[in-house]
Amino acid sequence: MVEEKSSDPWPELRDLPMGRRVEFTDGRGQTYTGTVVTRHGFLGDRILQLKLSSGYNVGIRVDPGSSFRLLPDLAREAPEEPSPARPGPAGPAGGWVALLTTGGTIASRVDYETGGVRPVKGEAEILAFYPELERSGPVRIVPVFDRLSEDLRPDDWVTLGGHVVTAFRDGATGVVIAHGTDTLGFTAAGLSFLLADLPGPVVVVGAQRSPDRPSSDGPSNLQAGVQVAREARLGEVVVVMHAGPSDTRFAIHRGTWVRKMHSSRRDAFESRNGPELGGVQDGRVSLGPLARPPTPGPARLDGPIDAHAALLWSFPGLSAKTARAVALDVRGLVLAGTGLGHVASEHLEWIREATGRGTLVAMTTQCLGGRADPFVYATGRDLMAAGVLYLDDLLPETAYAKMVWALGHAASREGVAELLTIPRAGEFLDRHAGVRGP
Amino acid sequence: MVEEKSSDPWPELRDLPMGRRVEFTDGRGQTYTGTVVTRHGFLGDRILQLKLSSGYNVGIRVDPGSSFRLLPDLAREAPEEPSPARPGPAGPAGGWVALLTTGGTIASRVDYETGGVRPVKGEAEILAFYPELERSGPVRIVPVFDRLSEDLRPDDWVTLGGHVVTAFRDGATGVVIAHGTDTLGFTAAGLSFLLADLPGPVVVVGAQRSPDRPSSDGPSNLQAGVQVAREARLGEVVVVMHAGPSDTRFAIHRGTWVRKMHSSRRDAFESRNGPELGGVQDGRVSLGPLARPPTPGPARLDGPIDAHAALLWSFPGLSAKTARAVALDVRGLVLAGTGLGHVASEHLEWIREATGRGTLVAMTTQCLGGRADPFVYATGRDLMAAGVLYLDDLLPETAYAKMVWALGHAASREGVAELLTIPRAGEFLDRHAGVRGP
Repeated sequence: MVEEKSSDPWPELRDLPMGRRVEFTDGRGQTYTGTVVTRHGFLGDRILQLKLSSGYNVGIRVDPGSSFRLLPDLAREAPEEPSPARPGPAGPAGGWVALLTTGGTIASRVDYETGGVRPVKGEAEILAFYPELERSGPVRIVPVFDRLSEDLRPDDWVTLGGHVVTAFRDGATGVVIAHGTDTLGFTAAGLSFLLADLPGPVVVVGAQRSPDRPSSDGPSNLQAGVQVAREARLGEVVVVMHAGPSDTRFAIHRGTWVRKMHSSRRDAFESRNGPELGGVQDGRVSLGPLARPPTPGPARLDGPIDAHAALLWSFPGLSAKTARAVALDVRGLVLAGTGLGHVASEHLEWIREATGRGTLVAMTTQCLGGRADPFVYATGRDLMAAGVLYLDDLLPETAYAKMVWALGHAASREGVAELLTIPRAGEFLDRHAGVRGP
Repeated sequence: MVEEKSSDPWPELRDLPMGRRVEFTDGRGQTYTGTVVTRHGFLGDRILQLKLSSGYNVGIRVDPGSSFRLLPDLAREAPEEPSPARPGPAGPAGGWVALLTTGGTIASRVDYETGGVRPVKGEAEILAFYPELERSGPVRIVPVFDRLSEDLRPDDWVTLGGHVVTAFRDGATGVVIAHGTDTLGFTAAGLSFLLADLPGPVVVVGAQRSPDRPSSDGPSNLQAGVQVAREARLGEVVVVMHAGPSDTRFAIHRGTWVRKMHSSRRDAFESRNGPELGGVQDGRVSLGPLARPPTPGPARLDGPIDAHAALLWSFPGLSAKTARAVALDVRGLVLAGTGLGHVASEHLEWIREATGRGTLVAMTTQCLGGRADPFVYATGRDLMAAGVLYLDDLLPETAYAKMVWALGHAASREGVAELLTIPRAGEFLDRHAGVRGP
């Protein structure tokens, strides 16, 4: 099965089909063994991208002095180590992890037509991209959506939550959700409020770089996420992503505290208003004291939701007319005000009107750190008097997710306000025993 | 003039008028000398707040075992060191700093009626709060507004900019603007675009804690700001605020890169998409290589602006109806999209409509780190095809400020778009020689 190398290997390499297994030796004698993922894309011409057996991708410049040989297809050989049976529901002694896929970069590949990234569709293609998943233990893949996360909506949180409950009911010990990173934080917050009595971890993971790229974080985030879902004594929704530039350290973020703080870095996700719950370092999972333990279950989906809600960030020059128009379409409006939770005094009038017709206007801070507090400045007291509910240290996005959930659970403005202020998913830092903000 | 101490000093201290000078000795023998600022407020009963001669405030619990004596009023004594003449316009050999006041916490005090904070009004009251300003060198105070910053609007940036130009024309070597912190970042960005050919620094400073509070950062930020305005070889708009919890280190932030990232911490301001330009450490000003030097001048106000603009942050569930309504009222709309600059595909339709009628829709990232980039995902390419202008690494707030400025300078959508993409105030990090984002 082994073929001879050519003097300039590029013309031949360029024409290899995806999935062919090769051993490539670069001009300096460094050898790489893996399967062809792509031969061009972001990195320009003469670039070979190989998926190594570790699951990582590497991009190699194919200079004329390099060489390669074709290797036998792994699938036709006996595996080097015993692979587990294709996972099904585990018996009482076993433990399997459900992997729900939704689309996004973590399940995407380069579209050769445009040079951009398109979703990977179907279970077979996903397993082809992440062969290591089948080696790390019993994992059952459940394709739920194949959309980029910017196209997911609050209703989709309910669908996802239903699949989580089903997975636990069928015997999963933990659930991983592979999700596009754009709105991953929103979904994690939404699921935190929608899911109750969790008997195990619900781990949302994503990838900032597509699996085709040498720097892809998808495989390592997915492996860390599966490990957290399998091993961590957690009964809440968390996000597991790179904690730094290396592939050896991952952070476990509470779903209601996490926010995407960089458009492209692999360590883009940060716990903003609380500490990280734990981490994965060199393959070992650790949890801090704030992590919430599993419940006896069974997991419940605590719907319904009502997405007649909006999130409006204030700015100097935001007109009362615009804000009033936004408020008119919703039952609940979350403001991301400046500082301790302020908007210009010209907004008091429409806020009083909205309050009067039963719309709940809630306040958070656009600083993304610290808390909204109506008691420091006259502006805050005026807003509170107009009916604004101050939501303490909730991130604007978390407050919006909780609003959507609360609107589905109460008919009156007062009922929604009460649900919003009662801690439900560890979302308020300072109502945690022993922990206070700076 | 020295009176006897009482056994429980509280009843007497409680009735002292503000401004009385006392020497207070607490139960452990620690002695404080200063003027009475207030005797209650945030900290509860039996708390004496003294303004020390350093300009800092200290809050002291008045236990029954403590004591005090009244000291002679400083103003009736000869000053210990020669104080400068009341500053006027300096001659060619001199150099004075203009201090424009606008209101906000940095010029506010406790309202005894409500326990909250109200603006300090008038030059006399400001000087009474910041006596150290008159000792540190020639400073001329120019009261411009006395509003909390959440009530300032883009038109007010033009008014402020006009005062800056006047100050430089009258011979100021630098200008300090004391500003509420809520919208300080917006104003710093707005002035960065409005002011041209600056012959010296324009330094925006604020206070996160009011001057009545022991932890007030107002006096130290103001002193650091005046020092930067006096000494730094800078020809741009910067923000000077605490760089950490101590009173000895201050950061110099570029006006277009800075954002308030905490509602109450004294070091709330961060340079988000570029390094700090410099700092003040233990009274010494230093500048890094990116700081822009002064121009020969004269300073110009490059108005007008057009505030028919809005800033809209996307979220899962943002309805096309709401977004369309916002876009209908403006000539320019800045979106803070998710990730690399995305919104749900349902928004393409109203974006095409807005583009068709000459409204400019621009894209930034709500991550507040990294850049908006339309070339990675199909969503970005679709949005660009619908007419969306991608604004690279501009903060949403900076993009909005630049939009307001650009709308005042061009009539057509294409003209506004061109102005937005041309670097003007060091706002794009990666167009700086030698510097790239992570």
